[in-house]
Amino acid sequence: MGPDPAVADVRVAVRRALGGLPEGARVLVACSGGADSLALAAAVAFEAPRTGRDAGGVTVDHGLQEGSAQVADSVVGVMRGLGLDPAGSVAVTVVGGGGPEGAARRARYEALDGAAERLGAVVFLGHTLDDQAETVLLGLARGSGARSLAGMPPEFRRGDVRYVRPLLGLDRATTRRACRAMGLEPWEDPHNDDPAYTRVRLRREALPALEKALGPGVADALARTARMLRDDVEALDALAESAHADAADEDGALDVAVLGGLPRAVRTRVLRTAAVRAGSPAGTLAAVHVDALERLVTDWRGQRRVDLPGGVSAIRRRGRLLFGRREDV
Amino acid sequence: MGPDPAVADVRVAVRRALGGLPEGARVLVACSGGADSLALAAAVAFEAPRTGRDAGGVTVDHGLQEGSAQVADSVVGVMRGLGLDPAGSVAVTVVGGGGPEGAARRARYEALDGAAERLGAVVFLGHTLDDQAETVLLGLARGSGARSLAGMPPEFRRGDVRYVRPLLGLDRATTRRACRAMGLEPWEDPHNDDPAYTRVRLRREALPALEKALGPGVADALARTARMLRDDVEALDALAESAHADAADEDGALDVAVLGGLPRAVRTRVLRTAAVRAGSPAGTLAAVHVDALERLVTDWRGQRRVDLPGGVSAIRRRGRLLFGRREDV
Repeated sequence: MGPDPAVADVRVAVRRALGGLPEGARVLVACSGGADSLALAAAVAFEAPRTGRDAGGVTVDHGLQEGSAQVADSVVGVMRGLGLDPAGSVAVTVVGGGGPEGAARRARYEALDGAAERLGAVVFLGHTLDDQAETVLLGLARGSGARSLAGMPPEFRRGDVRYVRPLLGLDRATTRRACRAMGLEPWEDPHNDDPAYTRVRLRREALPALEKALGPGVADALARTARMLRDDVEALDALAESAHADAADEDGALDVAVLGGLPRAVRTRVLRTAAVRAGSPAGTLAAVHVDALERLVTDWRGQRRVDLPGGVSAIRRRGRLLFGRREDV
Repeated sequence: MGPDPAVADVRVAVRRALGGLPEGARVLVACSGGADSLALAAAVAFEAPRTGRDAGGVTVDHGLQEGSAQVADSVVGVMRGLGLDPAGSVAVTVVGGGGPEGAARRARYEALDGAAERLGAVVFLGHTLDDQAETVLLGLARGSGARSLAGMPPEFRRGDVRYVRPLLGLDRATTRRACRAMGLEPWEDPHNDDPAYTRVRLRREALPALEKALGPGVADALARTARMLRDDVEALDALAESAHADAADEDGALDVAVLGGLPRAVRTRVLRTAAVRAGSPAGTLAAVHVDALERLVTDWRGQRRVDLPGGVSAIRRRGRLLFGRREDV
């Protein structure tokens, strides 16, 4: 008799992710103790030895709740029991801006970077299809185009550390069922029910309302959308990169004639890149700024300089767009 | 004293749309009597004569409700009162598949095509930013990528008839305010409150839930997203068109080596186009089919033919993908 179907689904996903790693690469599971990363930890502990890989686990103690150290200890115990070795916890201090979720995320990834570097390991993260759907909706609210709708990538790097999300194709119901079938009791983070978090409100109110209006399968459709838009973003970013090289001279000024011949989707990306390279912070550079740059190219009527965030300005002069510090252009 | 700000907003949007038309082009406003198209009709009646243009109006009687002929007569009366000339109604019979909304839309556009052809006019439609936001959410549910998220285009053609949506940048609240300020009483279509319609459920439940979770401005963000994705779709479709020409031989077979060198976003579009040209209906060709075609190119392990909707199949043979009727490949 084989394993429970949910357990099998998680294992298949993990096996596929392990198969994509270089020979001899170690794995480090990031495990909060919640159902998603717990199911992931169990599947990695099962599959990694079968492909001759070392697999450890790490849990991050954010220190944001009473008793978080005990939770971390208990997660470490569970990981050890599953056979992950080494298994440990890292305590972090959550500080800085970007909202409580942003600050916690930053601290968590720094801790994971450090642990992975010490072990020379690839980090496996437990995000599921439902997390992906929520991320797409969060991106919708930003209204900043394909990049913000493309959700979380299945793989990425931070410095030298590689991160993989093997469970992006599975839903939360599957990881819960898998935990139940293996007799693992997930830790229920009270933050996951706190409507102060945008993600919690999306999960508990907005997604059910969308499912009610549109029918079942919305999370699936959002995840599928993310995957397709990720391909689009990659293709257009690569085109923009090469178009930027064609349009820019050694000072970073852009040739308006070259820009004018580009499709708008590529041109706006080139303009955005040029602004960011000139020092305008990517996070605050909005569609309205890129639109103003676009008008310098396609709707030129002798406009003055365009002021961008971060004290950067752009001006059109003799068939070229010049970007620089406000006082210099 | 100028007009009410809402009236001014609608007029500015209409003036810009009129400015984009060729010299001497006539305008035909499609007016249901609802606030959006009524505000549009009033603004066109005001602006068109100021640019020397003839402007008429038409309302479509779908015959789906008791008293729909009287509603149509009354809308015609209002349009005449505004100065639109000619103003008339067309009665249609709503039949066929695609759900009640799809069948009504089809009948409506056929009637508008006919009226516009008779007058040699450009049709103005009253869709607003809120309609656009709903359309993007409907597209999300399909999960079919950028094209379905790109919403309604500001301009399109059906055969020889050109359609323009001047109000896509304005919200429904503005058209309502404009009607009130001009003393025009919009007709409230009971269908707009009938939760049997997906769009009504989106408007009344899903969008408010999203606004509650994500904060105000969701409709704006969705409309902005649509505009950006529309640019992406145009650029990628143009690339795919030229890549298809590079990859295809005179029989429509595709060179696998050429396909393999394309970014995935372009390649999947080329594969989709080839399948549609071979007779697979665009509406039923899903991501899962395109994925199977993609594997013939990038994950070739001697697969059998790939069966597509509409009795079309594809097979890889001697470095080429062949598309045809199932019995022929």
